Amino acid sequence: MSLVVIGSVAFDALETPFGKTDKIIGGAATYISLSASYSVKPVKLVAVVGDDFPQSDIDLLQQHGADTEGLQIKQGEKSFFWSGKYANDLNSRETLVTELNVLADFDPVIPDSYQDCKYLMLGNLTPQIQRLVIQRLVNRPKLIVMDTMNFWMDIALEELKTTIEMVDVLSINDEEARQLSGQHSLVKAAKIILDMGPKYLIIKKGEHGALLFDKKQIFFAPALPLEEVFDPTGAGDTFAGGFIGYLAATDDISFENMKRAVIHGSAMASFCVEKFGTERLLNLSQEEIEAREQQFADLVAVAPVAVAAS
Amino acid sequence: MSLVVIGSVAFDALETPFGKTDKIIGGAATYISLSASYSVKPVKLVAVVGDDFPQSDIDLLQQHGADTEGLQIKQGEKSFFWSGKYANDLNSRETLVTELNVLADFDPVIPDSYQDCKYLMLGNLTPQIQRLVIQRLVNRPKLIVMDTMNFWMDIALEELKTTIEMVDVLSINDEEARQLSGQHSLVKAAKIILDMGPKYLIIKKGEHGALLFDKKQIFFAPALPLEEVFDPTGAGDTFAGGFIGYLAATDDISFENMKRAVIHGSAMASFCVEKFGTERLLNLSQEEIEAREQQFADLVAVAPVAVAAS
Repeated sequence: MSLVVIGSVAFDALETPFGKTDKIIGGAATYISLSASYSVKPVKLVAVVGDDFPQSDIDLLQQHGADTEGLQIKQGEKSFFWSGKYANDLNSRETLVTELNVLADFDPVIPDSYQDCKYLMLGNLTPQIQRLVIQRLVNRPKLIVMDTMNFWMDIALEELKTTIEMVDVLSINDEEARQLSGQHSLVKAAKIILDMGPKYLIIKKGEHGALLFDKKQIFFAPALPLEEVFDPTGAGDTFAGGFIGYLAATDDISFENMKRAVIHGSAMASFCVEKFGTERLLNLSQEEIEAREQQFADLVAVAPVAVAAS
Repeated sequence: MSLVVIGSVAFDALETPFGKTDKIIGGAATYISLSASYSVKPVKLVAVVGDDFPQSDIDLLQQHGADTEGLQIKQGEKSFFWSGKYANDLNSRETLVTELNVLADFDPVIPDSYQDCKYLMLGNLTPQIQRLVIQRLVNRPKLIVMDTMNFWMDIALEELKTTIEMVDVLSINDEEARQLSGQHSLVKAAKIILDMGPKYLIIKKGEHGALLFDKKQIFFAPALPLEEVFDPTGAGDTFAGGFIGYLAATDDISFENMKRAVIHGSAMASFCVEKFGTERLLNLSQEEIEAREQQFADLVAVAPVAVAAS
């Protein structure tokens, strides 16, 4: 059940209505691997950073179950940096700074020890690079999950579609599903996207939950109504990490088990947003995670109508 | 289990991306009573129309279980008229015309035969009129459910709060809950609104489902992902009618039964939006309704993890 994760490992500087941070560790692969590590270890990381990336952050990833053999450190270069500011309702954000730096010419290297990959998570990156990783694995993984974003739909749609065709599960948000399909109805959007190749589609709706589709079925997982969302950064990646981590740990890719994986991912994401950056993902207990999953189950549970005893 | 419904009975002229209608029967009490009639009959209607309101529409209400003894017909006056146009995504609408007409000086009359009222549904109206109905009932009903809208928060907030304090269940949408409470988080909003008096709060989130709160518990009912929403007019009223109709029919106001009532109401609303105006609510079968409720249950159902047989 070897799990390989590719994506950005980066610096983020965040501003929300509740405060701001200097450069802290961020990036899709960081959130994915931290989240997945609660289900499965090691998480075999494929990423690139500059020599400005502190050893302490690499140590932190390793302490949380990451195998960093596939993490390239580029001497004399700088790590990817993103800075963003959230609106008061946290539903929209403005990008203040994007410095690609080492990501500009990222050439992913797959160590031999990663060639046993059974579960592959393609975090948000150029679709060409996502595809390169699939091509550089000698054996096709049992399950490939892909995250992406509207940015690639805007500037590299054909490349994106070529990569989407190669994966098993595509995970995007509702606006991205509408953009990719040209359909407002998510049910119609899902049909069109599933015709592009993936067997499964996850549509993330943020505070409104997530939908899982295959060609015949729909499953809906609610989001937990939270008193306070502190910082939404990384929630989608944390969801994806929880989702694929759960599938890798149980090694069961049936639709029924994917439902559980969606709920597990949603539970992990609900922790992520409670504090700045990755903070809340660093010290969760299995008891906390199970209790949160139970809250998700309770939220939609309806007792059957009692039948009068005979 | 006598059910009394007050609200507008009116003309609507609707325009959606899929077409437009001339004046057709509309109004909160129309949708509420049509929807409730699938659970309980008669639905005792308190409303007012002008002499322009056709007998055929009154016949239609009666054929669908409405007791119209409390429906006043004002000679020489015109019925309430609303005209609206929906945006392409159907999530926002523009009011083109609002003619209060007979509603401007509506003085609700409660027939003696309505005094057995056990379940009272206050459809959207001036909060003063909603309160008058409560006061004109000799005995306080077992359950009072109130619907309202942001309009009254804008122009009659104190009157609105006085009425809210007198009801058991308040049903509003997410933006209204935020406006009424001054809180963006719906969990925080619910706490503040429940402190205003109601024991239960329903927050309708349209295509994103509905939340039911009491002071200790939260229940979430999803909305059914639909291929096509044809016309959202009346969906909230249809939900409310289904909700209170279910409670009146089962005569059980426990939180657990309210969950079932929320799902029944959501199922009724999902029919409503499939056609223009009240059309889809006129000829539903119990089999169709039960099948739709089953779809809601299936949407969130997760089979327990199988334990290996010993």
